Amino acid sequence: MKIQGKNSVYEALRSDEITVNSLMCAKGVNSDIIALARKRGVKITYVDRDLLDKHSPDGKHQGYIADVTDFEYCDVADILSSSDKPFAVILDGINDPHNFGSIIRSCECAGVDGIIIGRNRQVAVTDTVVRCSAGAVAHIKIARVTNINNAIKQLQENGVWVYALDMDGEEIGKADLSGAVGIVVGGEGSGVSAYTKKCCDGVVSLKLKGKVNSLNASVACGIALYEAVRQRG
Amino acid sequence: MKIQGKNSVYEALRSDEITVNSLMCAKGVNSDIIALARKRGVKITYVDRDLLDKHSPDGKHQGYIADVTDFEYCDVADILSSSDKPFAVILDGINDPHNFGSIIRSCECAGVDGIIIGRNRQVAVTDTVVRCSAGAVAHIKIARVTNINNAIKQLQENGVWVYALDMDGEEIGKADLSGAVGIVVGGEGSGVSAYTKKCCDGVVSLKLKGKVNSLNASVACGIALYEAVRQRG
Repeated sequence: MKIQGKNSVYEALRSDEITVNSLMCAKGVNSDIIALARKRGVKITYVDRDLLDKHSPDGKHQGYIADVTDFEYCDVADILSSSDKPFAVILDGINDPHNFGSIIRSCECAGVDGIIIGRNRQVAVTDTVVRCSAGAVAHIKIARVTNINNAIKQLQENGVWVYALDMDGEEIGKADLSGAVGIVVGGEGSGVSAYTKKCCDGVVSLKLKGKVNSLNASVACGIALYEAVRQRG
Repeated sequence: MKIQGKNSVYEALRSDEITVNSLMCAKGVNSDIIALARKRGVKITYVDRDLLDKHSPDGKHQGYIADVTDFEYCDVADILSSSDKPFAVILDGINDPHNFGSIIRSCECAGVDGIIIGRNRQVAVTDTVVRCSAGAVAHIKIARVTNINNAIKQLQENGVWVYALDMDGEEIGKADLSGAVGIVVGGEGSGVSAYTKKCCDGVVSLKLKGKVNSLNASVACGIALYEAVRQRG
């Protein structure tokens, strides 16, 4: 997989979970990224910006394109075993790579142990997702499962309390997010699907004003995660 | 200006601030949008989807493209006069239309009285912004000014306490956001610029974990706004 942009390449180089095979840079660049790539023993090639433009899907390479090993998904069990009080986010059909990238970024900032996504109705970890995550994808576990409802069951069997983030629940500040907890975030437009909501232990909501009264999925997720950070101290 | 997509067109039709001149729909569609357009006396044309695809910049029209009067910006004074305790958001260089649209959506949900943007280093209200705002732009005041620092001064002279949302401030939950208040949100990457930060009365921060430790601008704004909603009751 190719990744591009200063942040994404820098974070990939810092990560223990992503292997950078080679780095293509614009001639004349000199930065922490180059220093880090040298330290890591990554092969660096200096090329004209025209060539970078050709290799980039959208020209947003900022002088850096790296070839990395494809993203390695983990299992739900890996997420469960990474903490005494696992903190998981389950995505129920996020289709927009900008939103998924932004959610990964928020999860990393909030100390989430892992993200669970389905194989269907859900964007995978693509290069756009990597770029929109500002490199955070290099520091977080993501499990890709056939059925998120089974994954929710697996979490519950291991003592995790799973909330759906949706309308008509209790205000999120009143829910206890301090223990082993999972938060299900619904897709753009459709929200958490009815059956998945039934599988959850409870529903938490953001209480808002306004006429439109619907937040972007990644913003809603960010607000919920910040409340969890507050409670988890 | 052309706007497209179900949400954007529906909200434009509902709005008192946007005038829909005409509506182009895919043949066979029948929805609340058509009913509302009829009620509003908007001229409706039914066309083949191919033609809609041609008129759409990215094909995301969902069967609806409306021609509306260009977005009308307001003055800072309009925002100040819209409430006893004005609540304003000032954007310091948001370049990504997805982020700006998402911020407009969050502001509308949070009951913000108005958004202030600069003419430079800042995306204007374009059709992508309208779409990403899911129509919320139709229900919020936006002032476009030459210099946001002067606008901050004008707010302060009218009793508004202005906070910069940035690193190294007090945790946002400890700041008093219940009165006349403005929150300055910095651009992607660069944050709130140094001089603008100096112009503010205080700095509020989101306290996070993680290695990357930087949220998407629209997510950070959403978290700050939700805290304000909580305090403003």
